[in-house]
Amino acid sequence: MTHAAEEFPNGVGYIDGDYCAKEEMRLPVADLGFLLSDMTYDALHVHKGSFFRMEDHFDRWDRSIAKRRFTTLPHGRDEIRDILMECVRRSGLRESMVYILATRGAAMDGLKDLRSCQNNFLAWAVPYYGVIPDDRMEDGIDIMVSSVLRTPPEAIDPTVKNFARIDFSDALLEAYDHGCEHAVLLDRDGNVTEGRGWNIFALHGGRLVSPDDGVLEGITRRTVIELAQQTNIKAELGKIKADELRSADEVFMTSTAGGIMPIRKIDDRVIGTGSRGPVTKRLTDLYWALHDDPDYTTPVAY
Amino acid sequence: MTHAAEEFPNGVGYIDGDYCAKEEMRLPVADLGFLLSDMTYDALHVHKGSFFRMEDHFDRWDRSIAKRRFTTLPHGRDEIRDILMECVRRSGLRESMVYILATRGAAMDGLKDLRSCQNNFLAWAVPYYGVIPDDRMEDGIDIMVSSVLRTPPEAIDPTVKNFARIDFSDALLEAYDHGCEHAVLLDRDGNVTEGRGWNIFALHGGRLVSPDDGVLEGITRRTVIELAQQTNIKAELGKIKADELRSADEVFMTSTAGGIMPIRKIDDRVIGTGSRGPVTKRLTDLYWALHDDPDYTTPVAY
Repeated sequence: MTHAAEEFPNGVGYIDGDYCAKEEMRLPVADLGFLLSDMTYDALHVHKGSFFRMEDHFDRWDRSIAKRRFTTLPHGRDEIRDILMECVRRSGLRESMVYILATRGAAMDGLKDLRSCQNNFLAWAVPYYGVIPDDRMEDGIDIMVSSVLRTPPEAIDPTVKNFARIDFSDALLEAYDHGCEHAVLLDRDGNVTEGRGWNIFALHGGRLVSPDDGVLEGITRRTVIELAQQTNIKAELGKIKADELRSADEVFMTSTAGGIMPIRKIDDRVIGTGSRGPVTKRLTDLYWALHDDPDYTTPVAY
Repeated sequence: MTHAAEEFPNGVGYIDGDYCAKEEMRLPVADLGFLLSDMTYDALHVHKGSFFRMEDHFDRWDRSIAKRRFTTLPHGRDEIRDILMECVRRSGLRESMVYILATRGAAMDGLKDLRSCQNNFLAWAVPYYGVIPDDRMEDGIDIMVSSVLRTPPEAIDPTVKNFARIDFSDALLEAYDHGCEHAVLLDRDGNVTEGRGWNIFALHGGRLVSPDDGVLEGITRRTVIELAQQTNIKAELGKIKADELRSADEVFMTSTAGGIMPIRKIDDRVIGTGSRGPVTKRLTDLYWALHDDPDYTTPVAY
């Protein structure tokens, strides 16, 4: 452990133009990023001291910023890259989850005119974690298909990563009641969408499918599809019904936070043999191997 | 102006068990009230030095807290009443908007298990304002019917007042493009729902209707229906299509922030005579007269 890591064991944040310990980060309650969830964010990760697909994350970030019309953000891509490098450098972390957030900013008065706001930027780098516990990365976790509907794209665009996630919270509260720690949500037509912070894949007769609509366009999802295509596994975006998910040969979730994570049971139905399947294993190995490829990585100057 | 008001011109807040100037209030970014919009709130108002329908707001608050399963909130109703009284007393405000917020609280780690959180409570009292500018309270404002869908109740329950409001923000961005400052959203069946922070009423042939589903159960909405019934104006909850709204004799919005506020134009359609109609005027007078009724008011001990 480096000196920096000892100084900032919970990571380093950037807010109001300055660096601080992650746990000191506080947002003014007047920021419409809080009062209206009028914000977007992206989550990157650092593995073995390098960012993974950094510019792909920034491309998505730029699209999100444009869609939310955040025209007064204080930093562009080059400055943000420097800020993230500095957050990770100061944290000393070689394995890190790194967040960038843009908020509408504080309104001038109670009328909350969105055009009156100076957009706000914040970022942080914290020790790496997955959306499931480390001890379940091999065998997988149990999820439920929630009765809570995923917010439809016609109301809130899920491709603009955001914190308006009460649907996910309610789905989790329901899942806890059923002895599960995670839930996947359906759209109103009964198609599988996503979980809180993760995309989902189902393998059916050698064909890998991930939902095509009403979900985040995940960087890990994209990586899995690219890796599958390179290794002659048929992979595509499409529709999955809940029953097709339950009867799949293999099911896994994907997220920058954890990579590729197997799902062992959906509702009361065990998936495949009840342990990580061969395709999931192969893709997981390829995914982490890609982190040694200079085309996909950007080293941090510690 | 009292001494307190000079000291806190922007109002008084309560956070982390202590009082402060409103503009100093900052929420830890780790709070899931921010990261997941996992929160609820209520907004009360003080008029002529008294809270209006205070216990009715608390009844709704209690229902929201129960629905969100916030079982570790530090304060119950009696303590919250004292805190709100103290916020207003310290602010010196005789006319005030008063907010109470409950958040899930910070999670222990990246897994964000909702059950690991200590719920958080905050509150503030700020100078009174309406959702439309003061100079439009008589003549009304222009709104548009948004193409953005209101988040459906099956995804996020609108009766639990919350900040997951990206649908409203997007609707406002669209409204600005059309020269409007406000927007009302439809549900997927084309029924009118609500705007950002307000319910809506339409008068058609002497019959007053406000949407019955997919909206906040507003205290002002309820007051209007009660007042209408007392004065032989037929008032009820029901369905309103966008075209019925545009062709109504009178249309107004209701909110604790501003009371009853006339709508002058919807899209390019002028409502009625283009100024506040007689029923809107009558209900507005009755609404503010009710603020002198001791059954509806709770005086602040300044």
